[in-house]
Amino acid sequence: MKFLVIGGDAAGMSAASRAKRNKPDLEVTVLEKTDDVSYSACGMPYNIADADRPMDDLVVRQAHVFKTKQKINVLTGHCAESVNPENRTVSGVSADGTAFQFGYDKLLIATGGSPIIPDLPGFDLPGVMALKSLEDGRKIKAYLKAHQVKKAVIIGMGYIGLEMCESLRARSVETAMVKPGPVFLPWMAPELSDVIRQELESNHVKLHTGYQIERIKSEEGRMKVICADISLDADIVIAAIGIKPNSELAADAGIKLSVNNAIATDCMLKTSDENIYAAGDCADAYHVVTDEKTWIPLALRANRAGWGVADNICGKVVELSGIAGTAVFKVFDLEVARTGLTLKEALKSGFDPAAVIIKTRSRAHAHPGSSPIRILMIGDKKSGRLLGVQMVGWEGVAHRINAAAVALQNRMTVEAFSQTDLAYAPPFGPVWDPLLTTANQLLKKI
Amino acid sequence: MKFLVIGGDAAGMSAASRAKRNKPDLEVTVLEKTDDVSYSACGMPYNIADADRPMDDLVVRQAHVFKTKQKINVLTGHCAESVNPENRTVSGVSADGTAFQFGYDKLLIATGGSPIIPDLPGFDLPGVMALKSLEDGRKIKAYLKAHQVKKAVIIGMGYIGLEMCESLRARSVETAMVKPGPVFLPWMAPELSDVIRQELESNHVKLHTGYQIERIKSEEGRMKVICADISLDADIVIAAIGIKPNSELAADAGIKLSVNNAIATDCMLKTSDENIYAAGDCADAYHVVTDEKTWIPLALRANRAGWGVADNICGKVVELSGIAGTAVFKVFDLEVARTGLTLKEALKSGFDPAAVIIKTRSRAHAHPGSSPIRILMIGDKKSGRLLGVQMVGWEGVAHRINAAAVALQNRMTVEAFSQTDLAYAPPFGPVWDPLLTTANQLLKKI
Repeated sequence: MKFLVIGGDAAGMSAASRAKRNKPDLEVTVLEKTDDVSYSACGMPYNIADADRPMDDLVVRQAHVFKTKQKINVLTGHCAESVNPENRTVSGVSADGTAFQFGYDKLLIATGGSPIIPDLPGFDLPGVMALKSLEDGRKIKAYLKAHQVKKAVIIGMGYIGLEMCESLRARSVETAMVKPGPVFLPWMAPELSDVIRQELESNHVKLHTGYQIERIKSEEGRMKVICADISLDADIVIAAIGIKPNSELAADAGIKLSVNNAIATDCMLKTSDENIYAAGDCADAYHVVTDEKTWIPLALRANRAGWGVADNICGKVVELSGIAGTAVFKVFDLEVARTGLTLKEALKSGFDPAAVIIKTRSRAHAHPGSSPIRILMIGDKKSGRLLGVQMVGWEGVAHRINAAAVALQNRMTVEAFSQTDLAYAPPFGPVWDPLLTTANQLLKKI
Repeated sequence: MKFLVIGGDAAGMSAASRAKRNKPDLEVTVLEKTDDVSYSACGMPYNIADADRPMDDLVVRQAHVFKTKQKINVLTGHCAESVNPENRTVSGVSADGTAFQFGYDKLLIATGGSPIIPDLPGFDLPGVMALKSLEDGRKIKAYLKAHQVKKAVIIGMGYIGLEMCESLRARSVETAMVKPGPVFLPWMAPELSDVIRQELESNHVKLHTGYQIERIKSEEGRMKVICADISLDADIVIAAIGIKPNSELAADAGIKLSVNNAIATDCMLKTSDENIYAAGDCADAYHVVTDEKTWIPLALRANRAGWGVADNICGKVVELSGIAGTAVFKVFDLEVARTGLTLKEALKSGFDPAAVIIKTRSRAHAHPGSSPIRILMIGDKKSGRLLGVQMVGWEGVAHRINAAAVALQNRMTVEAFSQTDLAYAPPFGPVWDPLLTTANQLLKKI
């Protein structure tokens, strides 16, 4: 059987490797348009922070290792351009300009996502860069090395933009963020996002919200990000507005799309074509809280979905659970985490949500070194279910969120969650874990 | 209605306070034999570590505050000696020698636990001390201040003994641990407990396992802990062998006892007498994994059970979930956590357990500052259920265990747990959280 994979990052290589492990006689081919496969994309901001570390530290396994050790036919520099579901072929062109065509019995589309670049003047200047592929990372790093970069402007205030602040400040680059929307982090409760704002400002990152970007101007070897009311000087501009799923290839082949134009998949990762699967940032998923389709492109899901595809094409029936949208990121010394729905999402999905925000401490009463933890918890007044949690603090946030993620997966009520037997020792939290305290308070409202 | 509480620590004061909040016209009396109520007992090792911090930092709320602000009749120095369930009275004697008797409509026995002190010569020497009550803590601290304490011997290797190592080493006291049992931490997988042993040894704590203690001898102002084959010099001896439930008062009143002689309670915390409740270290609980009775005296349960009693006597029907035995403690820089059953407990409870041990990293591939995390995970081959987790590492252990604790509460299978959407960012873990990697490995065995 021929298993063809388009895209050689998290989802694609996870699927290829596991399929080959499942069935060593499987003929597995991976078409990757860049020169890189299997790297830790999320590690790029941290790598960029350190001028001395080679970007290739982030490569988990090189293409030739997949070829020689795992007998996977990894073809880098191979850009797939069309899928023909009737003939079961994929056509495209390789880096040297040669056209290619591959047949398949089962196809995985793992084309990932692409940074959103606004169609505005100046976004094609050489100093304006996005950060998605390893090649993007290399370009940013090379640019920082080659130029006297004193000032950076980050356009957008998402996870990647926020992580890049720490990275650029570590390299002593003056950093400003700007975005058109009036609210700093609209998905987050202001009581929590204000803490992040303060952390950024105390690390000398300037935040400009509510500024429509008009164009980027090149001026005497530097740049100016021109907004409606202000203009910001920059030696480098990072476009971190967000990503969109790379689903055009699938759509052109007649495969159904779903929310946010992500490729529609079922619990077995199958698309509307029974021989074609999709996984990773290009594909949708079910949400464990709403049971509705959602598109939250994150690394764990990409890896897990890759495995799911591999198992399913090899005849094991694997149905993936939904996702909770659990995410964590670091903003300088601050840990920020979320899982489940925001208040707005809860309302939109027909819940009758109630929310509480608690400020408590990261360590027990009288234990030295304690810092504040702030938690937002949302529950449904009708069903009593836990719907979502957001958390911000200097310690004890990143892994604490997972207890809530497991609770969401189990459709727990806030009451049942408030009864869970969580760990306690004075260096790690109060007797009543901050999550339990928040659940206890939320119970009074639902 | 008269609500009488015997014992003024976690369970007792939680119950008294919440009962009064629930029903302000309730007549609430607390009989506490010591002079202290409502303090953070678990904080004592950390307080002892710092010579300059007053022990009373650990008092959360003083007796007079309960009296004046909450109108709770808190009587310290009141030792209850007998309960008469027929007349609904409690008799005893106060610190000044006066006999007392109180009537009740509902009684809570929250008498806690007592350190096990072996009936051997020398355990009554003034330099031999246990650590359970705040007064115990004060005594240890005063002793360290008054004497030239250069050497300590800790008898027993439980949570408190291990925490006291860090405390004594912080005060530059040479520390040795000794116990009769041949195995350092018999409840833990050796691959994990060896890491703890190394952490202790690299902090210059000497471990002596398999030495039967015969007596403690006073010799020229110092002590010698005499064992079968060795004798250990000591200026202070900490007896940290374990605790037993203070259930004699209940037993004498004809109330049924349960495992480990803890007071038998139902999900509503009621004992075999319908007007008498029990909570805290003196009472048993159901285990969420086995559904059997268990006795695992820990602080969160004590607080939660106190609340449960308060709600139930006030007419809200509250049934407590069981406990998972989730615990975390710090051994110098090491975080150690567990939840659920050990392999031995799983076998004893009739499961058909399989276990895996994984060594992975606390941060993502190529992220600086990573350290090893070791995880033991146990699942049941028959039902596929997750049964227990143990974890040891220098970061990312204390709160990570809670995800497994929530899974146990929901009786999740290892497979379902392996599908949970846990958080990922490079500074906080690999893409596949260590718990997920372990679950994935365990799946191959069950």
